[in-house]
Amino acid sequence: MSGEHGAQPVSTKGPVLVVGTGLLGTSLALALTSAGVEVQLEDSSPTSLSLARDMGAGRPRLEVDAEPRIVVVATPPDVAADVVVRQLAAHPRAVVTDVASVKEQVATEVRARADQAARRYVGSHPMAGRERSGAGSADSDLFAGRPWVVVGEGADPSAELVVRSLATDVGATPVRMGAAEHDVAVAAVSHLPQLVSSLVAARLEKASDSALALAGQGLRDVTRVAASDPRLWSAIIVGNAAPVAGLLRELREDLDLLLRGVEAAVFEPGSPGYPGDTGRGDASTLAPGAVGAVSDLMTRGGRGRARIPGKHGGAPRRYREVQVLVPDSVGSLGRLFADIGEVGVNIEDFALEHSAGQSVGLAVVSVLPSAAQGLEEALDQRGWRVVVT
Amino acid sequence: MSGEHGAQPVSTKGPVLVVGTGLLGTSLALALTSAGVEVQLEDSSPTSLSLARDMGAGRPRLEVDAEPRIVVVATPPDVAADVVVRQLAAHPRAVVTDVASVKEQVATEVRARADQAARRYVGSHPMAGRERSGAGSADSDLFAGRPWVVVGEGADPSAELVVRSLATDVGATPVRMGAAEHDVAVAAVSHLPQLVSSLVAARLEKASDSALALAGQGLRDVTRVAASDPRLWSAIIVGNAAPVAGLLRELREDLDLLLRGVEAAVFEPGSPGYPGDTGRGDASTLAPGAVGAVSDLMTRGGRGRARIPGKHGGAPRRYREVQVLVPDSVGSLGRLFADIGEVGVNIEDFALEHSAGQSVGLAVVSVLPSAAQGLEEALDQRGWRVVVT
Repeated sequence: MSGEHGAQPVSTKGPVLVVGTGLLGTSLALALTSAGVEVQLEDSSPTSLSLARDMGAGRPRLEVDAEPRIVVVATPPDVAADVVVRQLAAHPRAVVTDVASVKEQVATEVRARADQAARRYVGSHPMAGRERSGAGSADSDLFAGRPWVVVGEGADPSAELVVRSLATDVGATPVRMGAAEHDVAVAAVSHLPQLVSSLVAARLEKASDSALALAGQGLRDVTRVAASDPRLWSAIIVGNAAPVAGLLRELREDLDLLLRGVEAAVFEPGSPGYPGDTGRGDASTLAPGAVGAVSDLMTRGGRGRARIPGKHGGAPRRYREVQVLVPDSVGSLGRLFADIGEVGVNIEDFALEHSAGQSVGLAVVSVLPSAAQGLEEALDQRGWRVVVT
Repeated sequence: MSGEHGAQPVSTKGPVLVVGTGLLGTSLALALTSAGVEVQLEDSSPTSLSLARDMGAGRPRLEVDAEPRIVVVATPPDVAADVVVRQLAAHPRAVVTDVASVKEQVATEVRARADQAARRYVGSHPMAGRERSGAGSADSDLFAGRPWVVVGEGADPSAELVVRSLATDVGATPVRMGAAEHDVAVAAVSHLPQLVSSLVAARLEKASDSALALAGQGLRDVTRVAASDPRLWSAIIVGNAAPVAGLLRELREDLDLLLRGVEAAVFEPGSPGYPGDTGRGDASTLAPGAVGAVSDLMTRGGRGRARIPGKHGGAPRRYREVQVLVPDSVGSLGRLFADIGEVGVNIEDFALEHSAGQSVGLAVVSVLPSAAQGLEEALDQRGWRVVVT
């Protein structure tokens, strides 16, 4: 707990230096700035740095004097360890953390190179991101309600506390994990879905235009993250190679079982073969192997899917939803919003869902939890049909 | 074009018999009822039939006398052909269509068994659905703006026209395709994503609770359709076995390349191997094979993803979007909606996007294309900051 470069008690409210003004770094800087924290910015790209500054994320490090209390390394993951080591040396009283998606690789290198100063290093991984990258896509709300993994192994407990507070300051929920445990977890919930999304999307490169015109929400959802940055993700996957390889091998075993089943439906005598065989009957009796293979996989997939936390598999919410039926006519939404404004409640988010009958819509108004009940009562008094969920 | 059971000119406005009151059948019945069409319902399950009737989808076939002009078979796909053949015989003047997700299998069996009456059969496939099933999840809006594939091969042109009108009546866009062309297309845009979503979700069955607590939107999107009905999907995949098997084999080849690359990062000497090796440097120089494998796949996936039509990969829209910056303060959305109401424009859909700075939000107002420009000008005159896209 001591040593020349050991951690000092620090406040999260001191200046925070964010190194790397990409999506995560800029979003974090914006969130901290909104929370009243002084933010310093550093980036090897002057363009990215200027953009982040112009967005109000903070001031370039070179233009300020105050020593940072916390340094957040938000560089690409393959250079994170190197930057952490340099920042530990440059700011001998600061707690240094990184936000790389892989934790064991960074921690091992930092401990090997930074010696005692490594006690001021705490790994972290905010579970937030989007398929777009760069400061221009930054959003101060990115961390709100999201888990933020804090890896305190080998660090001073006070340093770990500082990083937990940092997470809390931007609305995230700190989650304590070991580096190896974290890496195995993200292989399953993040890295594998990313790679498999790309595997599906890669099939679309040569699909016909008329096929693509039939694309629905299912394909869009499965392939959304396939639009992510190949350079960033190559580094992440390589940095977490063993857990990812293990899952890919398991997936290949399931794929082989599935493929054998589906091929049975094509080639087995008496099966509802394709193309050609016209003497077909009920497919479920003719190709039991195929039906079983698909059905087994989907049943297991359904069970796995059901384990994802959150209502209807949706993201955890900070807000309460107030639901109101609105007639589908000119001005009705306007009256609703005017009434909400008169009640004095701020609308944090809003969605309009169309009902089955089409003559009415369901307005879903997100408000702070403390305001929800009062709003429901006030709208009810004004004659709105509030849906109690 | 003639024959004992040849098609007669029919109007889509005549009674429509919907056989099968699951998600698709009930949604269609609700949509037709809203459009003023008389709908008759039939289902082997009395419970499902009652539910659909109680939802206002139509009246049970047994309680009405009028002969249907159109019969829509909305049963599970593995019994669709059999039901189509029986309906062609039961209603010798009706056009019969089905909504099964696989078209060649049904068409081949109908032509083999129904002889001349098959000229009154037109295959169709509305590209609409959701991961929930049953009448209770039905939505009359399900087909709005969606493609509806019409397979007219072997049918009287007048019968094909009737089915095209049916699609139009519920807001869908008819798309003419051959049965084989359709089946190859849906293998890529629907069946493969479904199976791969299940392959990813199946990995979650044995994941730790702490891993699942880290799940983000990426995992939720990739696995959303894994919650679909295994029985329904087994029949669909078996019915389209050859195109699906072909795509699964291609995907396995890419998976093998990827796995080889990722394993190289684990085992190659000097690579950022895992676990153990502490002498790491820049991963991108140490395991070029792994980086290349991931990067190549993701680049191809990104190109494939970009081919999906629709702005930002979103669903093709019937409406134009008007985007307005709104201050994040009480009442500002109310003023916006009041102004839109005064202009006399109906809001078809609405979304609120938060900007990076949080002090302002982006209101995305969907209106009929004919109203968009006028609304933009009117809002600009009233002092709103309209974002021109």
